[in-house]
This record gives sequence, C-alpha cells and structure tokens, in this order.
Amino acid sequence: MAVRQPAWHLPHQIDQPVLKIFNSLTKTKTEFIPIDGFHVKWYNCGPTVYDASHMGHARNYVTQDILRRIMSDYFGYDVHFVMNVTDIDDKIIVRARQNYLFSQFRNSATTLSADLLSQVSEAWGSYVRENVSKGLPDKEKPSRGEEEVRWPRIVGFARDQSRKLECLKRDEKFDMHFTAANQTLVAIEAARHALSANQSSGDTALRLVNESRDILASALDEKLKDTVTDQSVFRSLAAYWEGQFFKDMERLRVRYPDTVTRVTEYVPEVVEFVQGIIKNGYGYEFESSVYFDTGAFDSSDRHDYAKLEPWSKGNRELLAEGEGVLSSTSGRRSASDFALWKASKPGEPSWPSPWGPGRPGWHIECSVMASAIFGERMDIHSGGIDLAFPHHDNEMAQSEAYHECGAWVNYFIHTGHLHIEGLKMSKSLKNFITIDEILQRFTARQLRLAFLTQLWNTKIDFSESMMTGEVKSLEVTFNAKTIQNFFTNVRAIISQARAHEDQSDGEHHYNDAERELMKSLYDSKTAFRAALCDSFNTPEALKVIRDLVSRINIYINSPGRKANVCVVKQSATWIGDMLRMFGLGEGQASEIGWGQEDEGAGGVNREETLMPYLRALSSFRDGVRQLAIAKNDNALKEILKLCDKLRDDDLVSLGVALDDQEDGKALVKLVSPAELIKAREEKRLKLDAQAAKKAAAAEEVRQKRLAKMEKGRVPPEEMFRPPNVPEGTYIRWDEYGLPTATASGEEPSKNQQKRARRDWDAQKKLHEEFLAWKKEQESIAGS
Amino acid sequence: MAVRQPAWHLPHQIDQPVLKIFNSLTKTKTEFIPIDGFHVKWYNCGPTVYDASHMGHARNYVTQDILRRIMSDYFGYDVHFVMNVTDIDDKIIVRARQNYLFSQFRNSATTLSADLLSQVSEAWGSYVRENVSKGLPDKEKPSRGEEEVRWPRIVGFARDQSRKLECLKRDEKFDMHFTAANQTLVAIEAARHALSANQSSGDTALRLVNESRDILASALDEKLKDTVTDQSVFRSLAAYWEGQFFKDMERLRVRYPDTVTRVTEYVPEVVEFVQGIIKNGYGYEFESSVYFDTGAFDSSDRHDYAKLEPWSKGNRELLAEGEGVLSSTSGRRSASDFALWKASKPGEPSWPSPWGPGRPGWHIECSVMASAIFGERMDIHSGGIDLAFPHHDNEMAQSEAYHECGAWVNYFIHTGHLHIEGLKMSKSLKNFITIDEILQRFTARQLRLAFLTQLWNTKIDFSESMMTGEVKSLEVTFNAKTIQNFFTNVRAIISQARAHEDQSDGEHHYNDAERELMKSLYDSKTAFRAALCDSFNTPEALKVIRDLVSRINIYINSPGRKANVCVVKQSATWIGDMLRMFGLGEGQASEIGWGQEDEGAGGVNREETLMPYLRALSSFRDGVRQLAIAKNDNALKEILKLCDKLRDDDLVSLGVALDDQEDGKALVKLVSPAELIKAREEKRLKLDAQAAKKAAAAEEVRQKRLAKMEKGRVPPEEMFRPPNVPEGTYIRWDEYGLPTATASGEEPSKNQQKRARRDWDAQKKLHEEFLAWKKEQESIAGS
Repeated sequence: MAVRQPAWHLPHQIDQPVLKIFNSLTKTKTEFIPIDGFHVKWYNCGPTVYDASHMGHARNYVTQDILRRIMSDYFGYDVHFVMNVTDIDDKIIVRARQNYLFSQFRNSATTLSADLLSQVSEAWGSYVRENVSKGLPDKEKPSRGEEEVRWPRIVGFARDQSRKLECLKRDEKFDMHFTAANQTLVAIEAARHALSANQSSGDTALRLVNESRDILASALDEKLKDTVTDQSVFRSLAAYWEGQFFKDMERLRVRYPDTVTRVTEYVPEVVEFVQGIIKNGYGYEFESSVYFDTGAFDSSDRHDYAKLEPWSKGNRELLAEGEGVLSSTSGRRSASDFALWKASKPGEPSWPSPWGPGRPGWHIECSVMASAIFGERMDIHSGGIDLAFPHHDNEMAQSEAYHECGAWVNYFIHTGHLHIEGLKMSKSLKNFITIDEILQRFTARQLRLAFLTQLWNTKIDFSESMMTGEVKSLEVTFNAKTIQNFFTNVRAIISQARAHEDQSDGEHHYNDAERELMKSLYDSKTAFRAALCDSFNTPEALKVIRDLVSRINIYINSPGRKANVCVVKQSATWIGDMLRMFGLGEGQASEIGWGQEDEGAGGVNREETLMPYLRALSSFRDGVRQLAIAKNDNALKEILKLCDKLRDDDLVSLGVALDDQEDGKALVKLVSPAELIKAREEKRLKLDAQAAKKAAAAEEVRQKRLAKMEKGRVPPEEMFRPPNVPEGTYIRWDEYGLPTATASGEEPSKNQQKRARRDWDAQKKLHEEFLAWKKEQESIAGS
Repeated sequence: MAVRQPAWHLPHQIDQPVLKIFNSLTKTKTEFIPIDGFHVKWYNCGPTVYDASHMGHARNYVTQDILRRIMSDYFGYDVHFVMNVTDIDDKIIVRARQNYLFSQFRNSATTLSADLLSQVSEAWGSYVRENVSKGLPDKEKPSRGEEEVRWPRIVGFARDQSRKLECLKRDEKFDMHFTAANQTLVAIEAARHALSANQSSGDTALRLVNESRDILASALDEKLKDTVTDQSVFRSLAAYWEGQFFKDMERLRVRYPDTVTRVTEYVPEVVEFVQGIIKNGYGYEFESSVYFDTGAFDSSDRHDYAKLEPWSKGNRELLAEGEGVLSSTSGRRSASDFALWKASKPGEPSWPSPWGPGRPGWHIECSVMASAIFGERMDIHSGGIDLAFPHHDNEMAQSEAYHECGAWVNYFIHTGHLHIEGLKMSKSLKNFITIDEILQRFTARQLRLAFLTQLWNTKIDFSESMMTGEVKSLEVTFNAKTIQNFFTNVRAIISQARAHEDQSDGEHHYNDAERELMKSLYDSKTAFRAALCDSFNTPEALKVIRDLVSRINIYINSPGRKANVCVVKQSATWIGDMLRMFGLGEGQASEIGWGQEDEGAGGVNREETLMPYLRALSSFRDGVRQLAIAKNDNALKEILKLCDKLRDDDLVSLGVALDDQEDGKALVKLVSPAELIKAREEKRLKLDAQAAKKAAAAEEVRQKRLAKMEKGRVPPEEMFRPPNVPEGTYIRWDEYGLPTATASGEEPSKNQQKRARRDWDAQKKLHEEFLAWKKEQESIAGS
C-alpha cells in the first residue's frame, strides 16, 4: 500500500464584521451586497457647472472620494464610479445669457451719454422694485419712480441693525441686493455729475457700466433674452466651469471619475427615455413640455413615489427649486408632477423632440445616463443630502417607471451638509468660501483630514479650530503635524539602522515590549476594519491610528531601549498605507510616510534619493567636528585626510565627483559610480607608474653612485699595488704608493709617472668621498 | 400616522470564488481560512548566509514576494510575514574557518620556501585522493603518493568527453575538483621551478598560495580548525552575506519581511524549547548532543511524523544533508532521529546549555523563532520545495512535540525548483548564475514577469527564450515591451485630451464599442480574481491582462473612432494597479503606467534633486579644507563655526535637520524647510529673550551702582552745606563740615550730632568709592 499523508482539517472560520452602509432608503445601516460579485456600479450626482466650486462642493466630493477609495482600495471592490456633469440647466442658461448680453452692452458703451445714463437708471429702478423693496416693511416701500428719492431713507433703515434683521427675515438676500443697488446708485450719481461737467470719456462710461453689472445684466436679460440664439453661448460657460471644477478636484486630490457623462451628449437618449415613460403610462405632454405623472406612478402596485422622503411629497418650496426658474407651473395634473422635458422658449437652448424644440428636465438626465452606463440596476447612488428630495426621488421614480423595475438603486447614500461657524454658507451671509480660497489657507491634506474626523453623513460645522484639530468634542485630536513628526522619526531610526547594517546585531529579538506592540498592531488592524465596516466610520478608524501612533512613540522613546527596527517599520508601513488609502498622502504601497505635501510629488522618493548623500555629508561633518573639538596636534592634517577620503572613497561610490580647483572651490559632478571608480583606478595606476618610474630613476642614480663609491674604496696609496693591479706589475713604490719600478725593475717613463700621479690624485678625491659616504652609511645604520 | 418609507430588500448574494491554495499538507488545493479573521501569520524559511545569492534564491524569494503581495495588496489580508536568517550552520562554520585560516596562512607566506612548497604539495595530494580519485574508474585511480606522477594520464582521461561523462556519473562535482587540482598543480610546478632557480620572492609565494586557495583552505581547516576560538570569525561572515542577501532582494524588488529573526539572537529560547521537547518525551541526550525521537513521536496517537512526505521517512541521503557535514551519526536510536542540539567541538561556535557547550540543530531554529513570534499556531509556512523533507517535516514534528498540538501549520506552501536550460543549476555544471550576474543582463521587472508566467509551485526551466517571452508553450506571450508601449499610447491619448479639455465635447458618450470594452474590463476583473483564487494562478491572470490590452489596443486603433478617454483611462488604470500589485512597477495607486525601470529613480530629477545638497556639502568641505591648509591660529575654532553654520543656515533652508547627539554622530532628518526655519526662529527668539533678560538684569545692577555713585559724588565735608541741605538749615560748621549751629543759632542736640557724624562717616566711604569709580571711568575713556 502506498504511503499516504495524514488527514488534514479545514480551519474553523471565525465570523468577521461585514460592511454595512447607512442607506437613505431605510435610514438604517444595511449590509452591503453588490448585485454582481465584486463589481460595484456606483453613480454619483455631479456638479451643475456655472460658477466657482465652494466649500460645500469640497465637503461633498472629498467625502465621496473617501468612500470610493475605501470601497476600492480597502475592501477591494471593482468599483465603477460614474459621475454626470449637468451642462444644461436654468441657472446655466440665465447666467450665460446675462454674461453674453452684458458684455455686448459694455462693448457698445464707448461714451457716457444721457441715453446710457437713463438706461442704467431705469434698470436700477426696476432692480430696486423687484429685489430691495420686497425686503422692506410696507410703510417703507417706495412707490414706483420714487426709489431714488427715498433711497437715503432706505439706507438709514438698512444700516440700523435691528431693522436690517427685519429685512433679512423677509428676504435672506436683502443685504446682497441692497449693497448692489447702493453701489450702482453711487456710480449713477457720479456719472450724472460727470455728464453735467461735460465729461463723456469712455472711461467714465465703462466705470458706470461695470459698477452696475448685476443690475444691468438682469435688466438686459429681461429685455433681450429672445435675441440669444447661438447655443455655443451656453456650452462655453458650462465647458469653462467644468474645467475649473475638475482642476479644483485635482487640487483636493479627488480621483477623477471612472466615467464622466454630460447631458448635452445624451439628449437623444433622453427623448427616447421620456417616450418610454409616456408609453408606460407615467408621463403626459402639455404645451410641448412633458411631465411625470406622480399620481399614476404612486398608485401603481409595483411602485412607490418618493421612497427616500415620502414625507416631503408635495412640498412646494422643494419642488419649485427642482424645477428651475424658467419653468412654467401651469398644466400639471398634480403639484407633485415634475418636468421630464421642457419646451424651450426663445433665448433658451433647444434640441428637437416629438413635442417640439425643448430640453431635458433636470432629474431626467441622471436616470438616462445611469441607465445608459449601468442598465436597469445599480448598487450605489450618491449625492449631497440636499438632493434627496425631489431630485433623487424623482430620478428613482422616472427610472423605475421606464424600466418597470422595483429597485433601480439598492443603496442610496447622502453626504451631510456643511455649515460655516454654525451658519449655512451663502453669498448673502458673506461666509461663502471657494475652494480656491480655502486652499490658500489650508492644504488639501488638512482639509481631508478634517473631513475624515467627521462621519460622512453628518453635518459638518466648519471652523478654524476644526482645521487645526483642536476641537475637543471631535474626540479625534489628530493633526497632520503629529503624523509628520511620527514618520520623520521612524525614517530617521530606519536610516540610522541601515547605516550600521552589519552591526545591527541583537535588534531583531522579540521581548515582551515587541510582542505587545505587535499585538497592538494587529488589534488595530482588526479595529480599523471593524470601524470601516460600520458604515465607513472614519473618525473611529483615525482614532485607532492615533492610538497606535502613541503606542509606537512610547515604544521608541522608552529610555534605554534600542528599538527593534522591523517592529517599528512594520507598524509605520501600515499606518502610511492606510493614510494613503484615505487619499491623505503620496507615495507607493509599503512606503513609510505619506509624502511631503508642501513640496509636491516625490516626497518619499526624495528621502530615499537624498539620504545616502546626506549621510555622507553628515558623517564627514561629524568627523571634522570631532577632530576640531579634540584639538590634537595633528588635527588639521587629519581633517585634510578626511577631505580626501570624502572625495576619493565616500562620494565615489555615490557617483559624485569632486574636482578640487586651484581657487579652493571644488567642482561638483554627478556621474555613474562605475565611471568614477574606473577613473579613480586609472589615476591610481598612473600615479603608481609615475612613482615606479621615479623609483627606477632614483635606483639608477643610486647604483651609479654605488659603483662610483665602490671605485673609491681603494686608498690611493694602495691603488698601484696588488690586488688592485695584477701581481708583478710593479715591484717598488714610494711613500705615496706611486710605482717607482715596473716588473722589469725599470723606472716608469715620465709619461707613465705623470699619468700615475694624475690617477693618484683622482683616486684620492674618490677615496675621500668614499670615506665620507661610508661614515654616513654607518651613522644611518647605527641610529 | 407618520409617513413611512416603503420596505427595502437585501440584494441576493451571488456565490463568489474563494481563495484556494495548493497545500503541501494535502497535495491538493484547499480553501484558505485564516485562524484569526484577516490576520495571516506567515513564516518563510530564509537563507543560510555564507555565499552570494543565486538564481535559485531569486526564484524562491521573488515568488514568495509575489504570493505575499497578492495576499496583502490584492486580497487585503493583514499579513505578518516573518523570515529567519540562518546564521549558525555547518556550512557557515566551515566556510568562515577556512577563510580565516587561509588568510592567516597567506599573510605568513612571505617568501617561497621548500617548506611552503611541501605544505601545498601535500595538501594537493590529499585533495586529489579525497575528491578527484573517487570520480575515476578503479584502474585509473593512482595509488597513494602516485597522484602527481599519474596526473598527466588523469588529465588526458578527463579531457576525453565520453570518459569525462563516466567520471561525472560517479561524482557530479568531478569537473570542479579536477579543475581546481589541475590549476594548483600548475602553480606548484611553477613554484618548484622558481625555487630551483633561487627565486624566493614574496610574489612567487603569493601566487602559489592564491592558486591553491580551495585546496589549501580545506587542508588548513582539517589541520588547524581547533585553533579557531574567536566566535566573531563566524558572525562576521554571516553578517556580511546577510547584508548582501538583502541588497540583492532589494534589487529584485522583494519587500523586506515584516519581521526578521536570527538564530544567534534566539539561542536561550532554543535551549528552553529543546528542554520542553525532552520533557514531553520526544527528545534524548547522547554525548552532549540532543536528538529528536522520531519513533516516540510517530507512535503517539496525537502525532504523525513526516506529514509532508511520509514516503521519505528514513531516506538517508536527505537526512544526512539535513544534519550538516560536522555532525556525528552515532548514538541515535533510529536513523530517522535528528539533532535538536549539537555538542560543539573545538573550532565550532558554542553557547552554554544544560548538555554542555553546543549550538542549535538546523531544524530547531524555525520551530523556536516561529513560536516566539506567533505562539503555537500559524496559517502559512513557506519555503523552497527542497526544504519539504526533512527540514519542514522535522520542524513540524518538533513544534507539535513542544506545544503538544495537532496542527502547528495549516497551509504549507512550497515554491518549485529552478533549472537552467534543462539542467539543475550547480557550480560544477558551470551554469551557476548569481543574482548580480542575472541583473546585469535582465531587469528585475523582466525576471519577475518571467516568473509570473509560471505557476509558483512548478519547476521553472530558465532560458534565454523564457526571458524574452518568446516561448510559445508558455501560452502567455507577454513581455515588458508590449506593456510599456501600451502605457505610452494611453498616456499620449490622455494628455492630448487634456490639452483640449474645453473642446473635448462628444467624447464622453457610451456607444456599443464603449459598452463592450467596459464589459470586457469588468469581466477581466472577475476572471483575474478567479485566477488568483485558483491557488495564485498568475499565468492565467497575466493572460487576462494580455487579452484586455489587446482589446483596448483594438478599440483605440479602430479607424475613424475618437476614443472615449475615460473608458481607456479606466482600463489602463486597473492594469497598472494590478501590475504594481504583482511588484512589477513603481508609482502610486491609480497612476497610469508602471514607472520607467531602466532610467532608475528619476534620471534627470535625480540631478535636480541632489544638486543643492551636494553644493552645500561641497562648499562646506571647501571651507574646512581651506582653513586646514591655511593653518591659522584659530583654524579649529573657525572650522567649528562652519559646522554650526552648515547645520543652522545652509541645511535649514534645504529642509535637512542635523541633530547633534552626545556620541558625536548627528541624526539626519528630512523635514520641511518651513518647519525648520520656524524651529530655528523659535530657538533664536528664546536665546534673544534670555539675552535681553540678562542684559536688563545687568542694566539694573549698573543703574543701582550709578545711583549709589551719584549719592557719593558729594564730599562729606559738603554734605551739610547748601545746596546739599536747604539754604539756612545750618549757619555754622566745623572743619569737617559738621554743622555746629542750626538756623536758630543753637548747637544741634547730642542726638542730632551723633546722627550727623554717622551720616558723615557713611558719606566718606561712599565718596571714596565714587572717586575710585570716577578715576576708573576716566581711565576707560582715556584708553
């Protein structure tokens, strides 16, 4: 029988928290189950593009971005995030037409004339009647034509605080309108003055027109709107503000949607969709517009109208806002009914349809475009809470009417409001903050961190103290600086350990402290997951991170402990990954830190790139400093050696060439280390060769001298005696050792004697040199 | 009755593929269920550090890294990845000792002598006997002492291909040993020649010794091993190769383990663990070593020995390899028993234990360290397939014996072998490739991509064609260039669209082509998940990506189509994210692309980033150098000033903090310049405030002194005269200026006189002080 492995048992599965999301369709947290495995179809209501984005947008889109990142980067869903851009809308139409008509008017106002003055003055009067008067108590309202005469009284009235509050109660925009009217009147009076003084220059005219901008624009639109027939007027405005919107989003680190849809590109689909609704019995035409029949829909067994806010059905104020300023209210079967298709009047953009030229109603675009991308169901639909009714309820009704389905959206999620220091943000309250303004005061990271400390679906009260993380009630006192310091310290510890890599013995052991810290880390991971499963509870998740940071700081700073680098690194890596997951930082997975926001891209890589060089710099400085402090005799010599070592060893392997120049200022070059090492070797070889040549030359000199000295070894007295001459050359010598008789007994010839004498003298000199050299050699050997 | 929302229904959950892993404990794919939620305890067998890492290591560790990344970055598990470093081992001991003894020998071999020659020659003979002869057929084996004489015949024999194969069949290392022996013999003959010509220079000696390195090292070790008593000899070798190993891993983009453990740091735990095994009845001592009792363990009802490879029980060859070259084989109760603790002989490192000085057996370290980190259970244990038996089986047995538990490891995963062009890689086959060598020919990305095209647990046959992705049989023809081109194209499309942002009308619509591509994308995501769930089937996952790339290319290049940028971008983003997830690329989440590997960390930017810092370094050095050369009296003082200036000025504006420490080694930190400047300002303000306070205190002292001096300006003789007292207070005075008559002409009372005298004395003293001070002031003014 073959040998078999013993039985293996499947481990027991422990229940894990599941993701629950606060669902506006139930007003409770419901378990999240996508329709199709991991694929999540998510439609988010995008902006209506006609003005600069503000803090309200920031709150909404940054929060959506956080939720989207959690879903895809943390929970691993394959999220398809679709966002529309509303580029047809009554607000866009009015704004575009006014801009267009005003700029035409301004271009034609080249001189100040009585006619120009009277046009402005007339516009002013009707502006005051329509906008300012209605804020005043009845007895203060000027009668028609009396506005200018009564203006000083109105000014006095409006500047009295308690009375002003009365006006604001009647019309919350009173202050704004009053200010505009007052400003224009000042300009009118100045112009009148100028005209009576016969000043009619273009400048004066331009000043009057510019100061009357708001008032003129609305008067011109009232009078001339029908003349605007060029549709590009509307498209250009929308395109411009769409561009600005996405630039702002990029600055806020909001990821671009996976899919962007624009209404102007989906009009044929809108027409087809409206036809479908009519065919299914939930829509009707009236005077070339088409309306949704809420009564028919709500009374159908298959459908419910206003699933999100059934209690808001028939709320006229909310409904009117949804319909836009250019809509007619006549011809509807019920006050709840809303426009699917609006007949366009002259001066309004239009597209052909079976009901005549017109344009889509506001709600229909989302139904049509979401259906075009996702079909008849989606997992998540999101938007700001102010869109819940009527927009989202109408959208759902339309789509369920078209598809004849029961649940077009499974999870409806709404981000909370944003207030500024306790008040609703509005231009009239002068607490209106654009994204551009806020980003001049805080970084995108600070803003996002502040939003993260709040639940996504609650109201945020934006304030200075919230931004600095100092609000105690937030429970999460957590600011960018704490984190930045933490990462900086951890990186310093790691890079110090790296510098001593080979000597890092004994720092890899787990003692109780390390075991506890590791338990904290994995408990934190579990708690973090539980927090995010609990309907994206980011304040709780941040608290988990904050507590872990404190624990690591305590571990690191514990006196006498040499930290286990792995343990610290592992914890810091996770913290960095999670902060990045929230969109708070730059850098790639597993990097320690979250980038240096203020310094733009590549914060962490900057560190990786720089550190080896900085370590070289720092340790060179350490060496110099220690030598200078110790003040040894040869300190300066040693310092010079360090200078050479830095150039020839440390920087060579880093690929930095220092070329010392005559003026004492080295030239710095970045080259490849290999090249530098090669150059250094070549230089060394060359120096070696030179040294060898020099040594050889010196040796030759030495050898020559040695030979010479050798020659001088014989004293002149001995030079003509054996063995210095062959035995028997001479047989007699005088007292100096000069030969007096040759072998034959004869006296040497005169010439021979002369030569012998000369040789003797030379040898004497040589011998003296030899003796001196010998003495020198002996003294060297003896010393 | 309150209005209520209609009922909401939880969506239906669709069955999803679950992660299954090929488990060596069953040899099947088993569902993966972690013990503790998302926390995954994973222990991986690390390297024995005594030599350079090679392709086998690359295959193993890169593959492990891929699996680890899939688990954490794709499936979202909280993976705790622990790896040990074996820094006590017979191979390390022998290598370290040989290196040490050889280098000592070489240092002493300063001249060529007959003695040196005979030592080498003797070593050569015994090397040939032990290593070469056994590869030769019997009749070719030289008899003892005849080796050199018979060598020419052996050479002829070994160079005949067919005969060589015969030798290799007998001993696969024949070729290697033969080559070493031949090389040394050539050197011996040359040295003999030199000696007979009376050449005995150090160079000749050194050449002989170097050419005989392998042979001498083993002979020296045989003879002198007992003399090696310094344990740092062993530790240094291990530390060096550990450093090299992690450098290689970094180049291969293998993430550093979460936790690294070293045996040398866990010896007391090993001793305790071995005691536990003995106590539980599964270990016994013999001659100061301790062995595991496989018989006792296997016969226990609770345990099975060799769960991974029960069929290998008692395989002597495998067992012997596991025990190491320095082990004794006597004293074991069964041939299957293995060492838990080895008694150390002289020349082997040792630690104290109840059984005498010794060291841990190989298998025990993993049991001990994994238990120290994870306790008595873990989810995954991994390693190369060659470790399955006996190492992993013994590890499991030890741990289950110590913890008395049933399943120490739930999932055992083994990476497959690597062959080179069909052959096992080995030094003797000359197909041995180090990581350094392979990275000179291919990039880390190419290597990883090649590994990804293979199943992690199958044998890889590494070849040129595999690297270039040209092997048809791989089914995945996928190379780095294809991907690089794809990303380049997509980025070009996106940047083109951005340039015309405002005019990008009409490119956001979904037609059939876009809908199809989106379906492909989400189908691909599903298929990718399914592939990874199927025991990390990376070849299949890459195929999914390859097919999607093709589809996108077709979509982009379709004639007449203006691509919907969002659709392309969304697909490319996912592809980039997944390639990054596999460790194939750089960059942050959602970035398009995978970085430019060949250009290193930001080619041009490197220069831009580094230069300011290098300039600071260089000019600091310039300053120091010039001062050191000029040798002024206060040069050292000036150098210290430069050190401070570098820290407080130059580096501050570059965002580098140098924190000088007591040990003279500054800590280097990268922080934002703004923060540093602020800190420096705060420090300066504080110093200024201190200085101001000090100055104020000094001023106060000065003022007091001044006041006192001012009081002393009047000589005592004048003090009772006007204007120092009101006119008419006194009318007569004595020679000292003491009043003798008041205004009324009367003599002052006794008490008044007494008081006047006292005041006079005090004033005299004060006046003297005043005069001295005045003189001092004048001399200061005059000097």
